[in-house]
Amino acid sequence: MTVSMESEQKSTAQLPPTDSKERVSELMTSLQDQICKGLEQVDGVETFQEDTWIRPEGGGGRSRVLQSGGIFEQAGVNFSEVWGNHLPPAILSQRPEASGHGFYATGTSMVLHPRSPYIPTVHLNYRYFEAGPVWWFGGGADLTPYYPFAEDAIHFHRTFQQACDAHHPHYYPTFKRWCDEYFHLKHRGETRGVGGIFFDYQDSEGILYPLVYPGTHQSTAAAKYSESVGRVKDRTWENLFAFVQTCGNTFLPAYLPIVDRRRHHDYGDRERQFQLYRRGRYVEFNLVYDRGTIFGLQTNGRTESILMSLPPLVRWEYNYHPEPGSPEAELYETFLKPQDWVNWSSGV
Amino acid sequence: MTVSMESEQKSTAQLPPTDSKERVSELMTSLQDQICKGLEQVDGVETFQEDTWIRPEGGGGRSRVLQSGGIFEQAGVNFSEVWGNHLPPAILSQRPEASGHGFYATGTSMVLHPRSPYIPTVHLNYRYFEAGPVWWFGGGADLTPYYPFAEDAIHFHRTFQQACDAHHPHYYPTFKRWCDEYFHLKHRGETRGVGGIFFDYQDSEGILYPLVYPGTHQSTAAAKYSESVGRVKDRTWENLFAFVQTCGNTFLPAYLPIVDRRRHHDYGDRERQFQLYRRGRYVEFNLVYDRGTIFGLQTNGRTESILMSLPPLVRWEYNYHPEPGSPEAELYETFLKPQDWVNWSSGV
Repeated sequence: MTVSMESEQKSTAQLPPTDSKERVSELMTSLQDQICKGLEQVDGVETFQEDTWIRPEGGGGRSRVLQSGGIFEQAGVNFSEVWGNHLPPAILSQRPEASGHGFYATGTSMVLHPRSPYIPTVHLNYRYFEAGPVWWFGGGADLTPYYPFAEDAIHFHRTFQQACDAHHPHYYPTFKRWCDEYFHLKHRGETRGVGGIFFDYQDSEGILYPLVYPGTHQSTAAAKYSESVGRVKDRTWENLFAFVQTCGNTFLPAYLPIVDRRRHHDYGDRERQFQLYRRGRYVEFNLVYDRGTIFGLQTNGRTESILMSLPPLVRWEYNYHPEPGSPEAELYETFLKPQDWVNWSSGV
Repeated sequence: MTVSMESEQKSTAQLPPTDSKERVSELMTSLQDQICKGLEQVDGVETFQEDTWIRPEGGGGRSRVLQSGGIFEQAGVNFSEVWGNHLPPAILSQRPEASGHGFYATGTSMVLHPRSPYIPTVHLNYRYFEAGPVWWFGGGADLTPYYPFAEDAIHFHRTFQQACDAHHPHYYPTFKRWCDEYFHLKHRGETRGVGGIFFDYQDSEGILYPLVYPGTHQSTAAAKYSESVGRVKDRTWENLFAFVQTCGNTFLPAYLPIVDRRRHHDYGDRERQFQLYRRGRYVEFNLVYDRGTIFGLQTNGRTESILMSLPPLVRWEYNYHPEPGSPEAELYETFLKPQDWVNWSSGV
């Protein structure tokens, strides 16, 4: 495909409906409400405390945090809706058509840090941008176990696979690979966890993996898969909106059964110490690599809402290596590498 | 000053002595030895464990860590010496003359995390680069108290001021301001601590603050001071080497008296929890802003040595604010802002 063909196609991009911002904003607040309600029910001890805030440059948000709960040591669920005169350079380099235009962005993001080392940490984010002639959806959810169970990784992935397949057969295979690629700690040679789905810049142009991220190149697995399936026809604003809505609704059924299966596992100091150590990787990823976090910190976002993703207690230990054959070693050997979880058949 | 004049001056840069690398490397290992010996004496319980490592692309290092000591919860002191075909783009943009040349770099760096919240965390780094026609020294030391004492900040600064003044009257005023500027957490609106000195790109060109850092501009206090004093004449490789040697030797007398004054202060859970919380800022600075850390992580440095700077235990707490009038509030109000510590006269 040549550049000139791409440019030609781009001019045919659908316009969003006139009430697009209101509809997505309403979806994002509903998602925050639904998730908070589901998490409070499973936690059973604590409830979310809410702070609303206003962004002086335009917009604001609603941050909710649950601390010292029955299940969750900390759970943060944010909604925000912001607008301004121009997108930051990192985004404009991927969407040059947005240059010289104001922008609107809204999204919901969440990170849960359970107390038990047997319950995985989990992250979710869905977002929507409009800027001049362009608009796009992004998002995903990924799971980070400490003492992992293949059964949990399989459940999480299959649930999102079904959700994706209901909208397009190429979504899950592309966005699963993209997730493995994005949540990768290069300096550790590890994925953040067992992944899930991740996507960005989804619009009616029909290219599933439409960009070259800094530090990646078109030979990534996600890019290759996207190339192999070619342009996906007939995607509209409406069906992408519906897809994101489905993904959002899929979080609780993907995660809560895992909590239920693991909440009564006993653990001791060894497991707790390993969990605190592994939480350090979450900090490393979010502060070194995560574009949302870095963008927020460098552009006067609300620091306390952005850093709500960081764990309440974390440990670093120089030159730690798990004992060969231990449960901790199993995490490294099997679960911190990209795996085909939906087709997993080992006895792990 | 015009660009063409600067270019003209640059051509007069001194060549380093033929044995420059050996002499700086020996200085850096001696500094590591001296510091480790002094810290073991004051710790009294634990000793440093050493790992030597080889960098496949050229060079290697000697990492030393003391864990769970009498004074130090963790102390990391690294020496490294590396070489390769080209410097990374971020450095080349500041030193374009190095383009197309191989490079040599050596340095010693240290971060100490004491157990007591009354003993400040402290960082030191001295480094030397050669690349084609250019060479330079960089480094500094800065102090990060939790429950602060003006007396300690004054002692630390006056000790480095005396060391600097023995070499040049403009060094301390420039490098103190540069330190406040560099160790600044923009997203928190705080300095990392009470500062100290920081300098980079020091060569025989005679410009004390010779560059524009990303995110800063020539109106910074350090840049203004440097401009006001103009070019510093007659700096040679030899007297910069001697200056760095003096700075290195100044660390123990700047820090150990503070340890001695604070080591017997009793503290409880409140102070410990606040220390763990404030350690989070150290993590945020090192992973979000510190160019050495980010450069190391993104270029296949030895991860365990680079991240030895991170604290052994850290806490984050959503939307924490110190109680007005409390000792914790005093830290924020007085000690996390640039202050003229050498002339400090308040009763704090």
